[in-house]
Amino acid sequence: MDKTGNAGAPAQEPREQVVYGRNAVVELLQTKPETVEKIYLQFNTSHPKLKEIVITARRLKIPCGKARMEKLTLIAGTAKNQGVCALLTSVTFYSLEEVLASPRNSSPLLVILDGLEDPHNVGAIIRTAEAVAADAVVMIDGKGSPINATVHKSSAGALSHMRVCKVKSLVRSLDLLRERGFTIVAADMDAEQNHTDVDWSRPMALVMGAEGSGLGSETRKRCDSVVRIPMAGCVESLNVSVATGVMLYEAMRQRLS
Amino acid sequence: MDKTGNAGAPAQEPREQVVYGRNAVVELLQTKPETVEKIYLQFNTSHPKLKEIVITARRLKIPCGKARMEKLTLIAGTAKNQGVCALLTSVTFYSLEEVLASPRNSSPLLVILDGLEDPHNVGAIIRTAEAVAADAVVMIDGKGSPINATVHKSSAGALSHMRVCKVKSLVRSLDLLRERGFTIVAADMDAEQNHTDVDWSRPMALVMGAEGSGLGSETRKRCDSVVRIPMAGCVESLNVSVATGVMLYEAMRQRLS
Repeated sequence: MDKTGNAGAPAQEPREQVVYGRNAVVELLQTKPETVEKIYLQFNTSHPKLKEIVITARRLKIPCGKARMEKLTLIAGTAKNQGVCALLTSVTFYSLEEVLASPRNSSPLLVILDGLEDPHNVGAIIRTAEAVAADAVVMIDGKGSPINATVHKSSAGALSHMRVCKVKSLVRSLDLLRERGFTIVAADMDAEQNHTDVDWSRPMALVMGAEGSGLGSETRKRCDSVVRIPMAGCVESLNVSVATGVMLYEAMRQRLS
Repeated sequence: MDKTGNAGAPAQEPREQVVYGRNAVVELLQTKPETVEKIYLQFNTSHPKLKEIVITARRLKIPCGKARMEKLTLIAGTAKNQGVCALLTSVTFYSLEEVLASPRNSSPLLVILDGLEDPHNVGAIIRTAEAVAADAVVMIDGKGSPINATVHKSSAGALSHMRVCKVKSLVRSLDLLRERGFTIVAADMDAEQNHTDVDWSRPMALVMGAEGSGLGSETRKRCDSVVRIPMAGCVESLNVSVATGVMLYEAMRQRLS
């Protein structure tokens, strides 16, 4: 079974792509988990396949919601949904080459997320990246939060505009960007240079490390500059989406002035 | 019943102030809800008072967690907790007068939150306010998110350092601040002036409106400047904690340069 179609979806989720049926959803989670935004399951069911789906989805950080059979029928467009529907993301992923071939800015600006875990942060960063008209947000395939329903909501609509790249290897992507004339800047609280001391008017790729673990050593080696946001008080760091916003707006300030 | 004490609390929550017992917690939620950070309730209980506590806590946006009786005994320091414990905030609230009497900066900087609802945003803003060594974060009594466990977590420790004021009336507080020589700036996406065009080196109070509803009209009237963060892309606004970060770091940039 492998059913994909435009569902006769409820008003709050128009024109979502949907996969329904137990085996179809299990297979989807195995083969293309990055395309799944949210899963709806029937209330009060103990079918082992549905339990397996919940466990897999939890591991993959895909939100699961419970729904009545009538709602599932509306979402799937059919009552033969076996108690499970997966909403597919409407996001088109771009390759880095595609973004570089059609830049939005004469001096492009990329935001690279090295495995951020919290979908609220990922969504807020995509929103900020769109607010400064960055060229793309680059994410690492299989690392960090997927583009799930929480990311969509936190992006406040920005996901419909901002290009998102999924890359297999961050290291190879950074090498490619350097070849193409990008300056690679990463944020790290132990850096000596302030974020305001960098010339953001050049083609720039800003790398943000994950919450908690921060910047990987292989990534750090490939950066032209590692910068810190000055801390005047008693905390060591900012929330990563706030830190990204502070740096992207410093870039915008320099580019506008 | 009204039992308050230092609990023999578990390792992850040392030295929390705790109130336990059904009537004690109900009364606490009625009289001093702002002091409650989180409530723990016994698993699988259908006592009507406990249900009442859950409903009240949900309305007040205080997180509730389920716990085994052994954990409740550890938290309360006694088995006679009737299946419910409330962890009290360790935050001391200051009056605006107290903050103004002992400023942290020669040119003070205040962040005023006009009813922000999302505790993640409130926590992230307190964290950023501490990062720029602001003088205090001012909140309106009974409006927006309380200082709950989510705010604590999102502040990443900043709540131990940043002074928090609870004021009864925002309007009266703004009048007081103007009398004391503060310039009052509010953020609004419809403003004409950019946030970088303001002189942030003066004594400043930055007012941030709630997610969604934004700045109230009475508040807007009392502002010396209403500023916008420039938007170059297809979104109209930023996440409020990101927007606050962008403005506070513009203030810091100007103050350092």
